Amino acid sequence: MKNILIIGAGRSATTLIQYLEENAEKYDWRISVADHDIEMIKGKIQANTRAIFFDLFDSKQLDEEVRNSDMVVSMLPASMHAIVAQACLKHSKSLFTASYESQEVRSMAKEVEQKGLLFVNEIGLDPGIDHMSAMQIIDRIKGAGYDLKGFESFTGGLVAPESDDNPWQYKFSWNPRNVVVAGQGGTAKFIQEGKYKYIPYNRLFRRTEIIEIEGYGKFEGYANRDSLQYLDRYHLQGIPTIYRGTLRRPGFCRAWDVFVQLGITDDSYEIENLEHMTYREFINSFLYYHPTDSVELKLYHYMHIDMDSHVREKLEWLGIFEDRPIGRKRATPAQVLEKLLTEKWQLGTNEKDMIVMWHKFIYQKPEDQHPTYLTSSLVVEGDDGINTAMSKTVGLPLAIAVKHYLLGNLKMTGVHIPTHKAFYEPILKELKQYGVEFCEKELVAV
Amino acid sequence: MKNILIIGAGRSATTLIQYLEENAEKYDWRISVADHDIEMIKGKIQANTRAIFFDLFDSKQLDEEVRNSDMVVSMLPASMHAIVAQACLKHSKSLFTASYESQEVRSMAKEVEQKGLLFVNEIGLDPGIDHMSAMQIIDRIKGAGYDLKGFESFTGGLVAPESDDNPWQYKFSWNPRNVVVAGQGGTAKFIQEGKYKYIPYNRLFRRTEIIEIEGYGKFEGYANRDSLQYLDRYHLQGIPTIYRGTLRRPGFCRAWDVFVQLGITDDSYEIENLEHMTYREFINSFLYYHPTDSVELKLYHYMHIDMDSHVREKLEWLGIFEDRPIGRKRATPAQVLEKLLTEKWQLGTNEKDMIVMWHKFIYQKPEDQHPTYLTSSLVVEGDDGINTAMSKTVGLPLAIAVKHYLLGNLKMTGVHIPTHKAFYEPILKELKQYGVEFCEKELVAV
Repeated sequence: MKNILIIGAGRSATTLIQYLEENAEKYDWRISVADHDIEMIKGKIQANTRAIFFDLFDSKQLDEEVRNSDMVVSMLPASMHAIVAQACLKHSKSLFTASYESQEVRSMAKEVEQKGLLFVNEIGLDPGIDHMSAMQIIDRIKGAGYDLKGFESFTGGLVAPESDDNPWQYKFSWNPRNVVVAGQGGTAKFIQEGKYKYIPYNRLFRRTEIIEIEGYGKFEGYANRDSLQYLDRYHLQGIPTIYRGTLRRPGFCRAWDVFVQLGITDDSYEIENLEHMTYREFINSFLYYHPTDSVELKLYHYMHIDMDSHVREKLEWLGIFEDRPIGRKRATPAQVLEKLLTEKWQLGTNEKDMIVMWHKFIYQKPEDQHPTYLTSSLVVEGDDGINTAMSKTVGLPLAIAVKHYLLGNLKMTGVHIPTHKAFYEPILKELKQYGVEFCEKELVAV
Repeated sequence: MKNILIIGAGRSATTLIQYLEENAEKYDWRISVADHDIEMIKGKIQANTRAIFFDLFDSKQLDEEVRNSDMVVSMLPASMHAIVAQACLKHSKSLFTASYESQEVRSMAKEVEQKGLLFVNEIGLDPGIDHMSAMQIIDRIKGAGYDLKGFESFTGGLVAPESDDNPWQYKFSWNPRNVVVAGQGGTAKFIQEGKYKYIPYNRLFRRTEIIEIEGYGKFEGYANRDSLQYLDRYHLQGIPTIYRGTLRRPGFCRAWDVFVQLGITDDSYEIENLEHMTYREFINSFLYYHPTDSVELKLYHYMHIDMDSHVREKLEWLGIFEDRPIGRKRATPAQVLEKLLTEKWQLGTNEKDMIVMWHKFIYQKPEDQHPTYLTSSLVVEGDDGINTAMSKTVGLPLAIAVKHYLLGNLKMTGVHIPTHKAFYEPILKELKQYGVEFCEKELVAV
């Protein structure tokens, strides 16, 4: 019998737990789910699964649970993985997560290797399925001896067409905070036609490009963080174009940019006297003073928004001009915005989210005069507001990897992300059974 | 005999050293000037002054020099004062600086007090003369029993009209780096007509106001850091309007904003492959890719700069479009910009800089129906590129304060900034002898 310890039972853990439970009898697994919200766990597990009330900072409990497990899956926020990773090292247990590999975890690589353990990070959706689906095609193109000229990759967690009923065409299927502060981690970097390019935060949402996916219409993409690090991760040194981005529906970014320009995505200081402030007053504190002009007109003038602009509809629909109390004693501008958006962009219990991923590969076949353009796209819709596409696409790759590890099919050791064939082949193959399947199209430029 | 130790002999130290040397014989002072650039010291001191080759991180030397002094003046960059302050505490010596009071130095207040020492910070120009000249008038207005309704204060280190020969109407009279990263310390905060207002960095240089000073023409001001902290410092709690700003010549900010928007004032990452890059290529790396459009047109389009805009003249004069090698192996965008500006905005040996300070006080006299507007302005021109207005206005208040401290006229102890009468009365009085004199104008609104 194998004991699997899952730490963190939040939104993205639903499908992971389901998959492991469905396979538990067959493979003789005992599953324990630990979270500080015991009611949340109980809503997600079957009778045979053990629910643990868990405090990550109770090191005695952490030690005991990790020691009694055969492997650990952490679904905690990224910043907390290092604590779990230390406990895993101490008790010689392997660890899988869907989060970005941190510097702290990377620094444990040698010890993980020496102890014969496997720490896998970035094995969810993005990061995760993006790595696997891109590397499968990159390895295929390179394996055929073709020269890769360009790689672009976009992902978005959006709302399915049938639940798409607000002017932003957006609802939250993951942590709202990450959406509010998106892009603040540093200047976006990429390479285009051999030139390094940099986009600062204040221009990020105005440098978009349009992508069309058959049957789903148009999306817009903005640059996502530092694409340059993928030169090493995907073995693409010397490639003339590399660009990674995030997808939204067209028009989202232009309206979002208003919040960026006003300064209300700032999470670094608290608003004065917030307690009795309304959303209208909050917005006004980022506009110049005038004794009589309306907040609306001042904002439209300041931001150069025409009276017939679609941006107006989006802003007004959110209620940013309403004289309604915010109802928080203390908050940063970003926290005020997050509170408002969480009310408005909620994905209902009967609503469906949608995941969209799109890759473009440009490569040169020696027999052709012009390069070949290969696109590979994935669209996954959720079943409802609990069994979301986000939960499926984050949880399934992780769960399948856990299965293969416990079955002894993943023999590597050390700290890894799933760019290797040993990961992407079995996982992408099994994902197809769950409707997570890419659609490829190839055309030669003329 | 009193030993004065001056640490740091840079640009702003010239006048400080001169003043103390001129008074040395009369008051029996022995002056030591310490810097890691011994040649720079030698160019600035007289025969009786001792030059010390000095390494701040040689704690043995620091200990010895501080122990042998009667008081210490630090002209080092602000971040280094804490090291000197620790040594002063250890050897029970008082310390004066022209820099912003840091959290570290503030935390020493109790110990400074207990040892009967005096640490004075912010006793240069801005901060320094701004505190003293504002507090003198604030105390006068409040002393007369009037209600203060508004306080605005602007300072600029600029170039004198006779040396004003470039389209930016700007030259460096102090640390160029501070100009490049100005405004990046956090959202600007102030209060206008009872409303808290916030301006993020990306809007800072577009929210300017015009100020006119008789005989010197127009200036534009942008908000300087967090004005709210002056509510406590100047005892202005409850004032409906408080605003502090920085002055430039009109048009400067709009052109500077192009650098902010492009992202080239960013000091947080290094440009890739900088070694063989030209200024033109550097600018291009912040613009979208196009196979044939010129860098100029792409920038003007991206930044919405009309072909007849004054911004064009400013940018082209700087040579940002020149295919001239930058000549640095590694640098952040801000460092590349600083290198270019340092070449172009250099204040020549025979050129004159100019300091401008302007305060506005709005207060209500009970006998008047309307409020009274009082403005107080200061303009100081330098003698030449060495004896600059900046060096005079930073060095003289500090030097005069040192004199009064050594003569026993400053009896307070603890950590202070010069907002108290004990500072501003003798210092502002003596500054008039050096041509540093404010001009007041009062008018009652009708």
